[in-house]
Amino acid sequence: MSFPTLHNDTFLRACWRLATPHTPVWLMRQAGRYLPEYRETRARAGSFMGLATNVDYATEVTLQPLDRYPLDAAILFSDILTVPDAMGLGLSFALGEGPKFATPVRDEAAVRALEVPDLNKLRYVFDAVTSIRRALNGRVPLIGFSGSPWTLACYMVEGAGSDDYRLVKGMLYSRPDLMHHLLAINADAVAAYLNAQIEAGAQAVMIFDSWGGVLADGAFQQFSLAYTERVLARLHREHDGVRIPRIVFTKGGGLWLQQMEALDCEVLGVDWTVNLGQARALVGHSKALQGNLDPNVLFAPPAQVRAEAARVLDAFGPPHSGDGPGAGHIFNLGHGISQHTPPDHVMALVEAVHSHSRQMRR
Amino acid sequence: MSFPTLHNDTFLRACWRLATPHTPVWLMRQAGRYLPEYRETRARAGSFMGLATNVDYATEVTLQPLDRYPLDAAILFSDILTVPDAMGLGLSFALGEGPKFATPVRDEAAVRALEVPDLNKLRYVFDAVTSIRRALNGRVPLIGFSGSPWTLACYMVEGAGSDDYRLVKGMLYSRPDLMHHLLAINADAVAAYLNAQIEAGAQAVMIFDSWGGVLADGAFQQFSLAYTERVLARLHREHDGVRIPRIVFTKGGGLWLQQMEALDCEVLGVDWTVNLGQARALVGHSKALQGNLDPNVLFAPPAQVRAEAARVLDAFGPPHSGDGPGAGHIFNLGHGISQHTPPDHVMALVEAVHSHSRQMRR
Repeated sequence: MSFPTLHNDTFLRACWRLATPHTPVWLMRQAGRYLPEYRETRARAGSFMGLATNVDYATEVTLQPLDRYPLDAAILFSDILTVPDAMGLGLSFALGEGPKFATPVRDEAAVRALEVPDLNKLRYVFDAVTSIRRALNGRVPLIGFSGSPWTLACYMVEGAGSDDYRLVKGMLYSRPDLMHHLLAINADAVAAYLNAQIEAGAQAVMIFDSWGGVLADGAFQQFSLAYTERVLARLHREHDGVRIPRIVFTKGGGLWLQQMEALDCEVLGVDWTVNLGQARALVGHSKALQGNLDPNVLFAPPAQVRAEAARVLDAFGPPHSGDGPGAGHIFNLGHGISQHTPPDHVMALVEAVHSHSRQMRR
Repeated sequence: MSFPTLHNDTFLRACWRLATPHTPVWLMRQAGRYLPEYRETRARAGSFMGLATNVDYATEVTLQPLDRYPLDAAILFSDILTVPDAMGLGLSFALGEGPKFATPVRDEAAVRALEVPDLNKLRYVFDAVTSIRRALNGRVPLIGFSGSPWTLACYMVEGAGSDDYRLVKGMLYSRPDLMHHLLAINADAVAAYLNAQIEAGAQAVMIFDSWGGVLADGAFQQFSLAYTERVLARLHREHDGVRIPRIVFTKGGGLWLQQMEALDCEVLGVDWTVNLGQARALVGHSKALQGNLDPNVLFAPPAQVRAEAARVLDAFGPPHSGDGPGAGHIFNLGHGISQHTPPDHVMALVEAVHSHSRQMRR
């Protein structure tokens, strides 16, 4: 496959900790319900999965935020739960509710029956990646993504979101052997899934360990980190002669940053509880950092949004300005953008990140 | 007031980092729905608030877990939201749901109308403290408690539990002046409330900053930690010639442990994401530590429960055995016990903590 030349490589350069004219910014869940044009497309699609499985719709909504804001990266519009869905668990989204699996994995028989899914069942994702990459026409790079093995396991066992992760942790502590079996399958499936996204045109990939932070110290290393490592070890390091940076984001994982530094990836995502300056001092010599504004800042008026954006940039500190690898910062939220966010506040944020970070380079 | 002599002072000694024959253990929410005898009393009381506001019922349920298990401390049966209830916000608990306020604090007028409540409205709490202390008859010490100013603010503004803390953080980022006003009132109310509990017979007090961990770095220090400090500065340091240890527990606050060391308190509670050995190295020379088993461990069979309890004790490491202040550990969960916990697993836990920690002292 050949694609148009990339015009804005700020995001990719920051992943590799190379100097950039401004701090690149994109937002988790930037194609989403806070945008009226997204809600309009979703209404036409009929359902979330109707949207995600249709290449044209997925392309359309992925590009919507880029048409509004000068963002520095696009991220595939999809869901982290497509892989367990392809395993046959039956994903659905009731309107206004979170994801739900028709047949959650609750006992030994269900765990033993799991297999790495036939990737053809996920063809709609790879087709969307290629279609989006073409439609982007080189404006910004396209990020592919997947849930982490542990985060997928949470949903697969709980069957839905959870307050306490009682079922999945119950299995983890009662039958660690079963949990390891499940996680190994998830890891191999996630690796194959991300590699297929890379082959389809993704220029960077991100692993969302959204629920790594609910684990106890010790359990996190054994049941989340080890399987993220297993995924990373299997990923394509380059495609068509171009290196593919890999981002790992563990929500609530700030305490384990030093251990995450050993991961074979280029970027660590951090949430808003992390002090970016301290994180940079800890891991900045070998990893770029992505984050970490609290998405709730976007409910404040634009002046406060700008001030908080500057605070995050200043916490990271003056970025690298030389030629070789230094410390890279990719501005993002510490979690997905809320559906209740006023769209004009997002514009204030993106512009503030660009202008303040340009000033920092002077 | 005079009370019977205390027989088991293991918990208090650990708070002061003095040597103990075993590691003391109690469990957050130890008097609760997982116990059939609690459910029976609650059924008689008719409602949660019917239970909490009746001195006899509150005394009965506080003592129930002590009749079953050799726990080393009792904690007042009450709720963290009694203070805003006394401010007139109208607390209620629908069966199977969390707490709810009839009139949440959502705008400037509502914030300006707030006042430190008349403590007579909380007389039922202080009467319960005295009644429980008498009924304990010196078996173990009684812990009084309150929610932290920030945690109370979360419920007061949201009106109930929340996934994203959108309303309270919206106020924090949009109108920090209002949030500071609200928190100052909460802090003064909490301090008066805890002092009255101490006067009524509480032998230690604990501040639950259950939602401190949802704040961004920077915001935590300004909007949670500063007001916990304000409470601590106002607390009685002793009563009837006996010193009163103070515990601060910030769920999800592991990243800020070093800053919390500056708090004028004796014990820091930590959740399961924290490595107890690292925490001890960081703050153990000046603070005792309380925690930190994941409550979900209690869903595993007793053998696994025992192994995980030993893991937590070993992570803290051999306790202090000399005469002067050393490093103290109080075993607890990292959060309240789940209502679905099998009661016999709790027995396995308490016995394992005692026997393993005695072995560690040999």
